Amino acid sequence: MREMELKVSQVKSKAKEVSELTGLKSQIGKKAEFSGSVYKIRKMSGFAFLILELPDGLLQCVWSEETSKFSIEDIKENMCVTIKGFVKEEPRSKIGFEVTAEEITILSAPAEEMPVVINGKSMNASLETILDYRPITLRNEKERAVFKIQEGLVRGMREFFYQNHFTEIRTPKIVSEGAEGGSNIFHLDYFGKQAYLAQSPQFYKQMMVGVYTKVFEIGAVYRAEKHDTNRHLNEYTGVDFEMGYIHDFTEIMETETAMLKAAFSFLKEHYEKELELLAVEVPVIETIPAIRFVDAKELVSSTYNRVSREPDDFEPEEERLLGELIKKKYGSDFVFVTHYPEKKRPFYAMEDPENRAYTLSFDLFFRGIEVTTGGQRIHGYKEQIEKMKRRNMDPELFTSYLMMHKYGMPPHGGLGIGLERLTMKLLNKDNIRYASLFPRDINRLVP
Amino acid sequence: MREMELKVSQVKSKAKEVSELTGLKSQIGKKAEFSGSVYKIRKMSGFAFLILELPDGLLQCVWSEETSKFSIEDIKENMCVTIKGFVKEEPRSKIGFEVTAEEITILSAPAEEMPVVINGKSMNASLETILDYRPITLRNEKERAVFKIQEGLVRGMREFFYQNHFTEIRTPKIVSEGAEGGSNIFHLDYFGKQAYLAQSPQFYKQMMVGVYTKVFEIGAVYRAEKHDTNRHLNEYTGVDFEMGYIHDFTEIMETETAMLKAAFSFLKEHYEKELELLAVEVPVIETIPAIRFVDAKELVSSTYNRVSREPDDFEPEEERLLGELIKKKYGSDFVFVTHYPEKKRPFYAMEDPENRAYTLSFDLFFRGIEVTTGGQRIHGYKEQIEKMKRRNMDPELFTSYLMMHKYGMPPHGGLGIGLERLTMKLLNKDNIRYASLFPRDINRLVP
Repeated sequence: MREMELKVSQVKSKAKEVSELTGLKSQIGKKAEFSGSVYKIRKMSGFAFLILELPDGLLQCVWSEETSKFSIEDIKENMCVTIKGFVKEEPRSKIGFEVTAEEITILSAPAEEMPVVINGKSMNASLETILDYRPITLRNEKERAVFKIQEGLVRGMREFFYQNHFTEIRTPKIVSEGAEGGSNIFHLDYFGKQAYLAQSPQFYKQMMVGVYTKVFEIGAVYRAEKHDTNRHLNEYTGVDFEMGYIHDFTEIMETETAMLKAAFSFLKEHYEKELELLAVEVPVIETIPAIRFVDAKELVSSTYNRVSREPDDFEPEEERLLGELIKKKYGSDFVFVTHYPEKKRPFYAMEDPENRAYTLSFDLFFRGIEVTTGGQRIHGYKEQIEKMKRRNMDPELFTSYLMMHKYGMPPHGGLGIGLERLTMKLLNKDNIRYASLFPRDINRLVP
Repeated sequence: MREMELKVSQVKSKAKEVSELTGLKSQIGKKAEFSGSVYKIRKMSGFAFLILELPDGLLQCVWSEETSKFSIEDIKENMCVTIKGFVKEEPRSKIGFEVTAEEITILSAPAEEMPVVINGKSMNASLETILDYRPITLRNEKERAVFKIQEGLVRGMREFFYQNHFTEIRTPKIVSEGAEGGSNIFHLDYFGKQAYLAQSPQFYKQMMVGVYTKVFEIGAVYRAEKHDTNRHLNEYTGVDFEMGYIHDFTEIMETETAMLKAAFSFLKEHYEKELELLAVEVPVIETIPAIRFVDAKELVSSTYNRVSREPDDFEPEEERLLGELIKKKYGSDFVFVTHYPEKKRPFYAMEDPENRAYTLSFDLFFRGIEVTTGGQRIHGYKEQIEKMKRRNMDPELFTSYLMMHKYGMPPHGGLGIGLERLTMKLLNKDNIRYASLFPRDINRLVP
């Protein structure tokens, strides 16, 4: 045994440090060593700029024959290197400093030259090309910033949830009962049984209201969309919350308003650099206008003298016009539309007791596109069973869902937000695929 | 238009408040109104205890004929109610206060009595029953605490990641190239194409190292496990991180050590009540012992005079014995095992240059069970292609994965942690299903 013991070493607790602009800034006036990939080389007469990509941005290093102990000819773009050099103030630089490169160690070199230009101001390529080469086009400074901002949105929303005593949940995506049903559902063979990919965490988050009162989940959602549009993905991120003991469904809208406000503040506080790089105008939210579905339809049709072919829903063009109109009259990028027709809402939506043709529900539109669907749910067992029967659904198939109703549920409601849509509109992108790292659509399964 | 304008109201920003023990505590000596479900009624002579379940714990309310304006006979367990009453100090209570219930409003009543007892000290039922009735058994005080602790672990880990400049990513779970391959993979029909559910975010997190240097993802992972064991789930949560510019794979282990230490500290700071309720002993981590694979095998076999039937891997019993042995000799609940045989590691694992039969890889064991697999990856394009060919793999099928290698990657590595396994062992549960809200196994797809 004695001999064996000697073979046991001890691993200490130490977070791997990497070179960051934020850290290097404190090294001004000193020598520093840092690693990154060579984003761009710009040769001038007698000297050169060696732009390094660090985790949080680009760093300008200056090479010159006098100060650098290596030949610039040995350095190629997209090499991964470690540089030793002197960090000095540089007022003309956006970050306020640059580095005189003295020594370099080449850690790895690419096998081939990039097939697309990734080190331009922005990606000057078609969406198709950008997505085909996603593992490398994401290295572009601006593409990178998109997903930092998305990270910031998620962090800001989570912070809001924790501060307001929501519990974070993780519910299964392989399910046997479909929440919304319908044809846009992915089927899966589960050891000989028929299973589906969850179209939303609806059933589970409702169940969890019975456990924790206020819950949220930020997770994948699957819709087998056959349409190739600029606003649909087949795998996207749902930001879902659900809460109990509501007096009224407007409390859900108030909470969403507070959440968006908090998330945007968080973003402005922690992701300033990325917002600036992408020239993002973050909406300032105080209140959000709300209008009933029938009034919104009428308002759009009377204002624009337009006949809708969809009496019970919005056409994409109507969404756009409503957004335009509200922006003009109320200065708001957001608008709630409430009281959707009963026939267009799922079986768990609570009907408006004042007019049962409508529901206590809402959508939220952001810059002309729907980003949220929410509302109050039926919490009574008898009411839910009756509603299912009116819809010719068999309650027997929903036994585990109805268990919560049977043994007691508080009045409750919630919503689901499409994270990529929110990101897309915040960044004024014209296609949702720009807001997904590796988008999935009817034609795209790779990379 | 003027008439229409009047129909637009404004939704204010206001987070829905719910009654919480933490909030009520500040109301001691005052009247308060709060809502919850009736967890338990205990009738005594002349008075009764009405135990209410609030989002963060149980609250004792006292009913008596003198002080309460309602009949206790009207109240049933699992009703959702709003109570008005006087909050007063009560030193005998664990939370330090109770409420004299004056008025009650019944918000909803269950349609049937609970088929299982959920308001005992803990769930006195078989795992099978607990899972069959999951939507309601989760309402048990202790079951609820399990997933608050899991939330705390995740929050603690995320905090660590953000503080150490990791970027959070979301990668697709519908994929066309399988990371590890093999038979335990779920197949999916994707618009006529063959797709799979991701067995890990391995390929994508590596790609993202080329973008952000340090990345993490906490998301679903799918394994079509046909074996019904106490340690496998078919859908579980992977905590994955990956980082570039490492000098050595031990930096990954150091980072994991730091992360676990940080997560456990966070847990102790913010989830004390739940840890106490479940009597959880949170490990104190300073350093973690590490031993090479061959030495660990030898150590177990010589100490316990035991012949292993698995020369290139651990049997579950060996994992248990190794854990026991390390705990005894080093007082550690954790142990790293390093340098796994090449033939048992995936094609992207970097071989040990000192002995190519082994890899620069590791597993982490926690209380006798593997909770992490990690290591350094091959970053050179040529090296990766050659390795694939040695394994009779066709690099053509991995074009999008190999793109990052081709155009330049830093030395890098990372790991994946099974969140439910970590939770299971932390709570000393004997079955991983206790650590998943709605577990998926070969027989269980509902609820």
